[in-house]
Amino acid sequence: MRVDINSDMGESFGIYRLGNDGKMMEFITSANIACGWHAGDATVMAETVRMAQEKGVGIGAHPGYPDLLGFGRRNMETFKGEIKNYILYQVGALAAFARAAGGSLQHVKPHGALYNLAARDERAAGEVIAAVKAYDPDLILVTLAGSLCAEMADSSGLRVVKEFFPDRAYLGSGNLAPRTMEGSVIDDVTKVKERVLKLVSTGKVTSIDGLEISLDAGTLCFHGDTPGAWELAKTVRESVEAEGIRVLPMSAP
Amino acid sequence: MRVDINSDMGESFGIYRLGNDGKMMEFITSANIACGWHAGDATVMAETVRMAQEKGVGIGAHPGYPDLLGFGRRNMETFKGEIKNYILYQVGALAAFARAAGGSLQHVKPHGALYNLAARDERAAGEVIAAVKAYDPDLILVTLAGSLCAEMADSSGLRVVKEFFPDRAYLGSGNLAPRTMEGSVIDDVTKVKERVLKLVSTGKVTSIDGLEISLDAGTLCFHGDTPGAWELAKTVRESVEAEGIRVLPMSAP
Amino acid sequence: MRVDINSDMGESFGIYRLGNDGKMMEFITSANIACGWHAGDATVMAETVRMAQEKGVGIGAHPGYPDLLGFGRRNMETFKGEIKNYILYQVGALAAFARAAGGSLQHVKPHGALYNLAARDERAAGEVIAAVKAYDPDLILVTLAGSLCAEMADSSGLRVVKEFFPDRAYLGSGNLAPRTMEGSVIDDVTKVKERVLKLVSTGKVTSIDGLEISLDAGTLCFHGDTPGAWELAKTVRESVEAEGIRVLPMSAP
Amino acid sequence: MRVDINSDMGESFGIYRLGNDGKMMEFITSANIACGWHAGDATVMAETVRMAQEKGVGIGAHPGYPDLLGFGRRNMETFKGEIKNYILYQVGALAAFARAAGGSLQHVKPHGALYNLAARDERAAGEVIAAVKAYDPDLILVTLAGSLCAEMADSSGLRVVKEFFPDRAYLGSGNLAPRTMEGSVIDDVTKVKERVLKLVSTGKVTSIDGLEISLDAGTLCFHGDTPGAWELAKTVRESVEAEGIRVLPMSAP
Repeated sequence: MRVDINSDMGESFGIYRLGNDGKMMEFITSANIACGWHAGDATVMAETVRMAQEKGVGIGAHPGYPDLLGFGRRNMETFKGEIKNYILYQVGALAAFARAAGGSLQHVKPHGALYNLAARDERAAGEVIAAVKAYDPDLILVTLAGSLCAEMADSSGLRVVKEFFPDRAYLGSGNLAPRTMEGSVIDDVTKVKERVLKLVSTGKVTSIDGLEISLDAGTLCFHGDTPGAWELAKTVRESVEAEGIRVLPMSAP
Repeated sequence: MRVDINSDMGESFGIYRLGNDGKMMEFITSANIACGWHAGDATVMAETVRMAQEKGVGIGAHPGYPDLLGFGRRNMETFKGEIKNYILYQVGALAAFARAAGGSLQHVKPHGALYNLAARDERAAGEVIAAVKAYDPDLILVTLAGSLCAEMADSSGLRVVKEFFPDRAYLGSGNLAPRTMEGSVIDDVTKVKERVLKLVSTGKVTSIDGLEISLDAGTLCFHGDTPGAWELAKTVRESVEAEGIRVLPMSAP
Repeated sequence: MRVDINSDMGESFGIYRLGNDGKMMEFITSANIACGWHAGDATVMAETVRMAQEKGVGIGAHPGYPDLLGFGRRNMETFKGEIKNYILYQVGALAAFARAAGGSLQHVKPHGALYNLAARDERAAGEVIAAVKAYDPDLILVTLAGSLCAEMADSSGLRVVKEFFPDRAYLGSGNLAPRTMEGSVIDDVTKVKERVLKLVSTGKVTSIDGLEISLDAGTLCFHGDTPGAWELAKTVRESVEAEGIRVLPMSAP
Repeated sequence: MRVDINSDMGESFGIYRLGNDGKMMEFITSANIACGWHAGDATVMAETVRMAQEKGVGIGAHPGYPDLLGFGRRNMETFKGEIKNYILYQVGALAAFARAAGGSLQHVKPHGALYNLAARDERAAGEVIAAVKAYDPDLILVTLAGSLCAEMADSSGLRVVKEFFPDRAYLGSGNLAPRTMEGSVIDDVTKVKERVLKLVSTGKVTSIDGLEISLDAGTLCFHGDTPGAWELAKTVRESVEAEGIRVLPMSAP
C-alpha cells in the first residue's frame, strides 16, 4: 500500500511571501508549483523547483488563470482553446526550471477556479487534458477524485492521479461539501488521520451525511497557505507510515 | 554560400495587433517569437508557432523584460540570477507551443533592452548564455555580431549565430551607429541589397565613416513592426537568391 | 431638441494603437476614456483628455475590469464592494488628468463586461452608483437605456444619461438584440440615420420584431474601434444637425 | 516644537499581506499609501484610507513605478513626461478613496526608485513637482531633506515637507549613507531616540564620520515593512512627546 502527499508550493511573488515552503517540502512527496500567473514568479519558481529536486519531491506545474489580484480563485470567461494555451504556457515555463535543475516534470495540477471548472465542465476538462497530452503524453494529471475531469482523463489514456482532501468533508455524491456547509472543514487532527488511514487502506470515506462512499484517490492534498498546514502534513504522514503504508511521489515505480 | 533571415514575430497582445506576421512569415527563415512578457500572449504564441511550423520557418524564443507597457525597450535593474530566470521562464513557455505544434525550438534571441544589455554587459551576457545552456545545450543563441555576448557565447561552446541589420549603418568599431546619428538608418532599398550581398559574399561591410570592416554574421534581421518590413525582406531575399545564395533556417544542415 | 454623441476613446496601450481617436474626436461630444485597466495607459490618458479638452468634448471615465488581456470583455467574479473600489480607483485616475488639463470630469460609463453586468445585476449596479456618488454626486452616469442600472440610478437621485446604440437592433423588451441574432447589427447607414432621427424626435424605436418601443435616451454611442466608426458618427451627426437638432455634450446647459 | 511621523502603508496586494498597518497607524500622523502600481490594490487602498481617516492620520499618495514584481525598487527608463503622468494617475486614484471616505489628500511622497531618482535627477524632480502642482497646488510634497528635489520644490512655491530617517546614518554631505556602508543602519533604539530629539530640538544630526550637519526636516519616516517598525515608531513618539514636542500631521495648523 502506498500514497502520495501533495501541496501547493511557490506561491510567493516578488517581495510578498506566502506559505512555509521550506517546512512543507519536508513532508510532501509531490509539489504543485505556481507558474507566475495567479502566484509565483520566475525566481520563486527557480528556487522552489531546486528545493523539490534536492529533496526528491516530484515537480508539478500548477497553472492558473492570469489573475494575480484574485489569486486565480475567480472564474474568468475564456474563448475556445484559450485554456489549453494557458496550460501549455505555464507548464512549459515550469518545465524549464525543472530541466535547469537537472530534473523533469512529474505532473500537472490546475489551480483554483481553473481546477474547479475543469472538475465539472467538459470544455475546460477537455482543454486541460489536451494541453497535458500535447506537451508530454507521459505527464500525470492530478485532478479531483470522482470528477468529470478524472473520468475524461481516464478515457483519454492520460496517466491520472486523483486527489483526496483529508481535512474536507464529502457529500454522499462523492463531491466536496461546500465550504459554506456546517462541518465541511475538519479541524480535528485525529479525525483527519482516521479518514486518511481508512481511505488508503479501504478506498472508502464516510460522507458528511453518514454514507460510506468509494473514492479512488492516489494523493492527499494539504494547502500550504493554511496556518498549521505543515504540522498537519507531518502528523498525517507519520501516522500513515506507522501503519506500514509507503509515502512516495506519485510517479515512483 | 547561405544566409538566414530572421524577424521578430508574435508581438500582438489580446485585442491589439502589431506587425504583419502572415506576410513576413513568407520571406523569413527564422522567427523570433515574443513570449508574453514584453509582447505576445499564450494564444498569439500558439498561432505564431503553428504558422512558423507550417511554413518550415525556424522557431525561436524572443524573451524580454516583464514590461508590456514599455514593450521591453527600457532597461530594468535586476538582481544577480534574475535574467537567467527571466530567460528560462520564457524559453520554456515558447517551447511548449513548439512541442504542441509537433516542432521544436531552434533558437533564442533576447529582445530589446535585454538584447542590448547582453550585447555589452558581462553579467547579463553570462546569464543569457547560462539560461540557454541550462535549458538545452543544443539551442542556438542569436546575438549581435561583434558584441561581447557573441564572444562569450563562442567561448562557452554554445552554438551562436550572429546577426546583421541590413538597414542600419555600422561604426568603424563594428558596433551599430546609434539611431540619433545622421545616416544611421538606411532607407534606400538598393543600398540595403548591396550591403547584404557584399556581407554574405565577402564578410565585409562599409562603415558609416567609410572603413571596410569584417562582420561574422549568419542571419539578417528585419523588424516586423516597421512599415514596409515584409516588402524589404522579400526584395532582399530575392536579390540574395538571384546571386545563388541559399536562404535557409540557421539550423538547417 | 438635442442629443449627445459618445464614443470609447483612449484604448491604445504602450506601443499598441487602437481606434482613430483624432478623427472620432471631431464628431463626438462626449468621450469615454479608458482608465488603464482594460485598456489605456497614463500617457494615453493624458493625451486623450487633452484632446477632448481642446475640442470641447465632455470628459468621461470608462472604467473596466483589471483584464488587459481580455480587454475587459469577460466577466470576472468579484467580492462585495470590489466593483465600487474598481470604479473609484479608475474614476479618480482619469479625473487627475482632467484637472491637469484644466478641465473636469463630466461622466462615468463602465466598460464591456462591467457595463453589461451593471445593466442587469443589482449588486453590480448598486456598487457602480455608490462609487459615482461617493466620488462626486454631480457626475453623470451613462448607462443602457431601459436597464436595471438606469432605473436604480434614477431612483438614487444620481444624474443619469441613457444611451442608444444606433447600429444595434433592439428586442421588443427594450433590450439589445444579442449579436448572435440575425440582423442584430445594422450596417445600412441610411437605416442608422433614420433610427436616430426617429429616436431623437419621437423617443421611439422599431424593434427587430416590428414593435414600436419607447426608449428614453440622451446619448448615441459609436464604437471607436469599429472600422468606419468615425465616418458613421460624422454622417449621423450631420443628418441630425440638418434636422435642427443640436448635438451637445450631455452636461451642456 | 512639533514633528510629523510618516510611514509607508497599504502595501498588501490581493491575497498577499505586508506590514502591520493596524498597529503602525496608531503611532504615525501621516500615511503614505501605495497606489496599486508597485504595491496595493483598490480594496487595500479603500481600507487603508478609511483607517487613516478614522484615526486622524494625514492621507498621502505613495506613487511608484509600474513594477509590482520589483516592488518599485528598481529604476525604469521613462520618456519625457511619463513620470508626470505616472504620478498624476496614482495621485488621482488614491484621492478618490480619500473623497469617498469623507477626507482629502494631504500629501504626495514618491516611492522607492522613483523617490531616489527624484531626489537627485532634475528631470524626474521637475516632473514630480509639476504633477503635484497640476493636481492640486495646495498638496504637500514629501521629499528627502537636503535633496535636489527639496530645493526645486521650495523654489517652485509648492508646499514641501522634508523627511528624516531616524534609523539611517547620514554622510557629512547631508545625504543618506548607502546601505552597503558599515553602520548605515542604526539598530540601537536609544541612539535612534537621541538622534530624533536632537534633530527636532536643534535641527542638527551627527554624521557617520562625526560631523555636525544641519537638516531641515519636518517629518520622521519609519518603514512599515521592517520587523519591529511599529514598536520603534511607538517608542520614538513617546520619547518625543515626553519632551513636550507635539506630534501632529504635517498639514495640521
